[in-house]
Amino acid sequence: MPVYANFAELLAKAKLRGKKRIAVAVAQDKDVLEAIKAAQDQGIIAPVLVGNASLIVSLIQSLGLPGDTPVIDEPDDTKAALAAVSLVHAGKADILMKGLVNSSIFLKAILDPEMGLRTGRLLSHLVAFEIPGTDKLVFHTDGGMNVAPNLAEKKDILMNSLQALKYLGIEQPNVAVLAANEMVNPKIPATTDAKALADMNANKELTPGIIEGPIAMDVAVSPEAAKHKGLSSKISGKADLFLMPSIEAGNLVGKTLTYYARAKIAGIIVGAAHPVVMTSRADSPEAKLNSIAFSCLATPFIQPLKD
Amino acid sequence: MPVYANFAELLAKAKLRGKKRIAVAVAQDKDVLEAIKAAQDQGIIAPVLVGNASLIVSLIQSLGLPGDTPVIDEPDDTKAALAAVSLVHAGKADILMKGLVNSSIFLKAILDPEMGLRTGRLLSHLVAFEIPGTDKLVFHTDGGMNVAPNLAEKKDILMNSLQALKYLGIEQPNVAVLAANEMVNPKIPATTDAKALADMNANKELTPGIIEGPIAMDVAVSPEAAKHKGLSSKISGKADLFLMPSIEAGNLVGKTLTYYARAKIAGIIVGAAHPVVMTSRADSPEAKLNSIAFSCLATPFIQPLKD
Repeated sequence: MPVYANFAELLAKAKLRGKKRIAVAVAQDKDVLEAIKAAQDQGIIAPVLVGNASLIVSLIQSLGLPGDTPVIDEPDDTKAALAAVSLVHAGKADILMKGLVNSSIFLKAILDPEMGLRTGRLLSHLVAFEIPGTDKLVFHTDGGMNVAPNLAEKKDILMNSLQALKYLGIEQPNVAVLAANEMVNPKIPATTDAKALADMNANKELTPGIIEGPIAMDVAVSPEAAKHKGLSSKISGKADLFLMPSIEAGNLVGKTLTYYARAKIAGIIVGAAHPVVMTSRADSPEAKLNSIAFSCLATPFIQPLKD
Repeated sequence: MPVYANFAELLAKAKLRGKKRIAVAVAQDKDVLEAIKAAQDQGIIAPVLVGNASLIVSLIQSLGLPGDTPVIDEPDDTKAALAAVSLVHAGKADILMKGLVNSSIFLKAILDPEMGLRTGRLLSHLVAFEIPGTDKLVFHTDGGMNVAPNLAEKKDILMNSLQALKYLGIEQPNVAVLAANEMVNPKIPATTDAKALADMNANKELTPGIIEGPIAMDVAVSPEAAKHKGLSSKISGKADLFLMPSIEAGNLVGKTLTYYARAKIAGIIVGAAHPVVMTSRADSPEAKLNSIAFSCLATPFIQPLKD
C-alpha cells in the first residue's frame, strides 16, 4: 500500500495532522489569497498575512476570508518578506508562502543570515505528481531551481527531498537517479554523478531508502523494461523519488506529464528549515491547494495546532 | 490538416510511395528479420540481407520470408557492415538497417570516408511520437545519440531533422527549441543556444519553417499556457519538431511519453546521406515496423521502385 495513492489522500492526511501556521510574504495578491482561502476552508492552515495591510484587508473582504485573519502591516516588500520569514524563524509559523514579491527578494529573505531559514544546504524544488494510470504519488526533483547541479549540489537536492519525504511518512523511499541509460560513462556527468550517489547510499552515507542510478526512466517505471534490458533493479516499477540530471530534464518531464499524461502537480521549495510554497499564476486552483497541503505535511512540526 | 495524424497514415503514405530497397547489415538476427518481414508484408520494402548467409537463409526459412530474398554472404561483421553501407552508397539501396552488429562497428561503416554515407553533418536520432489525445505525429530530436551538443552541433541536428521532415512532406515545420523557460540567460546554454538558432531562422540562415526558442514545453504544446505567461508564439499548440537541450532531456521526455502518456514511437538515424534504421530489442514489433516506414519516407528518393 502506498503512503499516498493520490492528492485526495495527501489532503486527507494534512487534515488529520491539524492546522499549520503559514506566513505569507507580501500577501496582497488575489491568486495567493484565493489559495489561502481554499486551504483554510479545508481546515489545514491558519494564515498570518504580511504586507500592505489596507490592500490585504480589502482582498480579505472581497474574497470572503475570515475577518479575524491576522494581518501584519509592512508596506515595503523587502521588509515584508523578511518579516514573514522571521515569523517562521521565530517558531510563530510553520510554513512560508510567497505572495506578490519578486522572487529574488523573497529568496534573499529566506537566506538571511540572522532571521532566515538557512540550513547550509542548497534550496531545491520538489514536486509531487498524480499520474493517471498509476497507483501512487511520485516525487520529482529538481526541475525548478538548480540549473546544472554538480555532484555535491545533487547530494543536497537529494537530502532535501529525503527529509521532506520522511516528514510525509515515506520513510524508506525508492529513489531513481535518472540518466539516459544505465551505463556509467566518464564523459557523461549524469551517469557518474548517479553512480556516486548510489554508492553513497550503499555506504550508508546517504540514507534512508534505496538509491539506484544511473537508471533510465523506463527501468525506473517498468519491471518489463528492466527485464528487456537484462537489468536487475530493486526499485523498478516502485520508484518514489526521481532525481533529474538537469533543470531542463526535470522541467520538460514535468510538463510532459502535465500536458500529455494529464498528471496533477503540486510543488514546494525544500532545503530551508521549513517548507516554502511558491505557487505561480499558471497553477490551477487545485494545484495551489495541493501545494499548500504538501507543504503542511513536509513540515518538521507534527503536533497539531490547538484551535 | 496535419500531414500525418498518426502512424497508420505514415504507413499508408509509405505504401503509396512504393517499395524502398533496404540493406541490412549483419542480418542474421531474428528480431530484425521479423521486422523486415512485417515491412515486406506491408509492401513498403525490398530487402538485401548482408551477413552470414547460412544463418540468414535458415532464419528466412523459419520466419517465412520469401525464398528469393537477396542474400550477400559476408561472415565478417566489419566487412558485412561496410558491404551493406556500400550498397546504399552505390545507389543499390535506399535505406540502411542495423542487424546483429556492434553499434560502433556499424557507425564506423556509415562514416567510412570512401564507401560510407557521410554528409559532413553529425549523425543524430530523430523520433516520431503518436500521443493519445493529440491530432498529429510530432518529432523529437535528439534523445539518443548526441550527449551534450553545442550550438554548432544543435544546428546540425536541426538541419538533419528539417531535411527528413521535408522528405516526409512536412515542408514548413514549426520547431520548438526547448528550454526550461523562455528567458535568455547567459548562464544557461540551453537558452542562449535556442535564441541563436531562432535568430538563424529569422535571418533565413536556417530554413524552412518557423524556429522558436527558448520555449518551454507548456508554451510549445498549449496556447493557454502561452497566454497565461503573457507570451505570443507563432507555433504554440502547433509544434511539429521539438529540439531537446540534451540527451537526458530527450531521453527522459521520450520515455515519459511512452510509459505515462502511452505514446507510440518510431525512430531513425538522420544526418547520413540516407536514413538509417537501428531498432532495439526492447522496441515492440509495431514500433519496429513504424521505424522502417518512417525511414521509407525520410529517403531522398521519392520515385517508386518498379516491381
